[in-house]
Amino acid sequence: MGNDARAVWDSVRKVRATSPLVQNITNYVAMNNTANALLALGAAPAMVHAAEEVEDFVAIASSLVVNIGTLSSPWITAMRLCATRANDLAKPWVLDPVGVGATPLRTRVSDQLAQIGPTVIRANASEMLALSAVTSKITRGVDSTEPSQAAIEPARQLAQTYKCVVVVSGAVDYVTDGERLLGVRNGHPMMPRVTGLGCTASALVGAFLAVVPDPLVAAAHAMAVLGVAGEIAAEKAPGPGSLQMLLLDALYQLDEAALGRVSIV
Amino acid sequence: MGNDARAVWDSVRKVRATSPLVQNITNYVAMNNTANALLALGAAPAMVHAAEEVEDFVAIASSLVVNIGTLSSPWITAMRLCATRANDLAKPWVLDPVGVGATPLRTRVSDQLAQIGPTVIRANASEMLALSAVTSKITRGVDSTEPSQAAIEPARQLAQTYKCVVVVSGAVDYVTDGERLLGVRNGHPMMPRVTGLGCTASALVGAFLAVVPDPLVAAAHAMAVLGVAGEIAAEKAPGPGSLQMLLLDALYQLDEAALGRVSIV
Amino acid sequence: MGNDARAVWDSVRKVRATSPLVQNITNYVAMNNTANALLALGAAPAMVHAAEEVEDFVAIASSLVVNIGTLSSPWITAMRLCATRANDLAKPWVLDPVGVGATPLRTRVSDQLAQIGPTVIRANASEMLALSAVTSKITRGVDSTEPSQAAIEPARQLAQTYKCVVVVSGAVDYVTDGERLLGVRNGHPMMPRVTGLGCTASALVGAFLAVVPDPLVAAAHAMAVLGVAGEIAAEKAPGPGSLQMLLLDALYQLDEAALGRVSIV
Repeated sequence: MGNDARAVWDSVRKVRATSPLVQNITNYVAMNNTANALLALGAAPAMVHAAEEVEDFVAIASSLVVNIGTLSSPWITAMRLCATRANDLAKPWVLDPVGVGATPLRTRVSDQLAQIGPTVIRANASEMLALSAVTSKITRGVDSTEPSQAAIEPARQLAQTYKCVVVVSGAVDYVTDGERLLGVRNGHPMMPRVTGLGCTASALVGAFLAVVPDPLVAAAHAMAVLGVAGEIAAEKAPGPGSLQMLLLDALYQLDEAALGRVSIV
Repeated sequence: MGNDARAVWDSVRKVRATSPLVQNITNYVAMNNTANALLALGAAPAMVHAAEEVEDFVAIASSLVVNIGTLSSPWITAMRLCATRANDLAKPWVLDPVGVGATPLRTRVSDQLAQIGPTVIRANASEMLALSAVTSKITRGVDSTEPSQAAIEPARQLAQTYKCVVVVSGAVDYVTDGERLLGVRNGHPMMPRVTGLGCTASALVGAFLAVVPDPLVAAAHAMAVLGVAGEIAAEKAPGPGSLQMLLLDALYQLDEAALGRVSIV
Repeated sequence: MGNDARAVWDSVRKVRATSPLVQNITNYVAMNNTANALLALGAAPAMVHAAEEVEDFVAIASSLVVNIGTLSSPWITAMRLCATRANDLAKPWVLDPVGVGATPLRTRVSDQLAQIGPTVIRANASEMLALSAVTSKITRGVDSTEPSQAAIEPARQLAQTYKCVVVVSGAVDYVTDGERLLGVRNGHPMMPRVTGLGCTASALVGAFLAVVPDPLVAAAHAMAVLGVAGEIAAEKAPGPGSLQMLLLDALYQLDEAALGRVSIV
């Protein structure tokens, strides 16, 4: 077993031992799967997004995930309030700017949230390019049309601008803090055919941020864990319906041996 | 086959024969699973929560379930309108005060809804303790950190205060109307690793309330049915992804023989 | 292989080759399954419903699906804005008037949206009868209590009134443009026990509208594809939990041979 696999296993055990409470302000599509993925891994999810309570809740949460997949005005208010309060309380938080670039609303909200100062930004390559304004090309819905390596440089610059960790997910997931760069080579090509696995990745990053001090390492471990679970699930899944179900089983059953698959470079 | 098993089977057959229309004002996370559980059992779910229509809809519904899992101001208004109208029309309704105690908003809304007068309140032990104000301890998200028996006395008092039936779910589910006390010993330890099974329990209580005159019995039968389905599912489920799927299959296939597992004391 | 099967296969290949971006303003219950069904088939779903962005988004979408399953005031505004804009841009769109007739709100909103001019209206027989005002009988929640053939004449008249294609789903799905009438005989009796498969049908109609010029043919092909996938799934599904999962697998694996099951009359 390599050092990376051992380190990932150590992080998984910490999640299971402490069961961090991960608050999610996330989209309607992925809410159920995201909660199930966190539970399967051993974390405690809470989906809390009302402006009237987000600031109270983040005070008892271990970390926060803000995902703009299904936006509306009241939620935008809550996202800003909650992210600001998370920073005040020094709680780590993840920004998932779903579909940034697809509409002016998404671009504006993503930019506002990024300026509040997330601990980690996770997006696909198209979204990353839109967020970094390296390209003015309109992203196509919420799925990526760009390979992840196309966004490495923009991601690095973004990480430096916002002093955060940036994850570009794709066939290889790139993780950078503006200086260091890791590539996570786990995962399976059928995974993008299940809705919300990008959102699930962001949620898992939230869980690992609660137990791993270095956000770069936390993010890389989360991506590796989801990728490994996807690989295990894909071995028995004839299609994306089975893949979604088996992925939850794999997160639940994940052990040291399974993590021998971890490939971080 | 014991008397309890026979009585539960009789209730299940009534649900299937009459297919009661169960209106749900419930949270985004559990909405899909809840609807599927009601359909699998043989009831007819409807998720209707707009203030503009909840009072019209409850008039054609057989029962109502109000679950505060994902709160927002417009829904709070709708919950109050709908619960009040349900009482006016003598329709039974269930209150599921998800996460009460975690934020002042949840505590306030739960208290307001409880005062309207639900037929049944279902919660886990942490929530029950918060609702009964026996403890001022903050609940931890939406998962229980207390064993269910710790909430028996608070539940009994709550049932007397609000003249309703109270269910505390846990390893053993306790059901009381303030005088009588039943314990349902069905279920499986993997069930809390599937999101929204507590919400599903509340929805099933709603279905049984529509066909069983005594709310204490209706609630106990619903908890037994979910517990038995969970036990059957867990026998083949390597993890919570499979458990969720097999639980729906088990509700659909539930027969007299399967209900031999019923354990109510 | 019959002509219909070959034509349906041709349409499926077009969806897979072009991966049309299908915008959905749909209900919370079916959002996840709908997105997964579109992804499994090979289309690209986007769930975008904020009034602030729907008009921008529909400009980059290939087609639009408007489903009123879980209504609220802000969404009604967005539905009207988006449908109007879709017409301005000559983008095809589907109306799914879930539960029309169950409450005055649903009836009013369905009527308003129908008057904007959808390309296709898809509903079950009870909803179709309510929408066509042939009967004043209150529909029962969101499930149909009428056989689909009872709604053939109302559907035909509705198609003529709104100059659109109308689909009445049921044991046989009827598709009419006011003159032509097709019957799609695929599907399985267990399908109504999975929540949101009607919504999924509407979403697939949206995908086929993006690649098939004749809306009558597009709608019939979508219904046939869902029905065939349901038949394949039901062969291995002991209950509705498995059915939902295997249906997604079947959509993903759908090939020319499987479409030999297509039965359009």
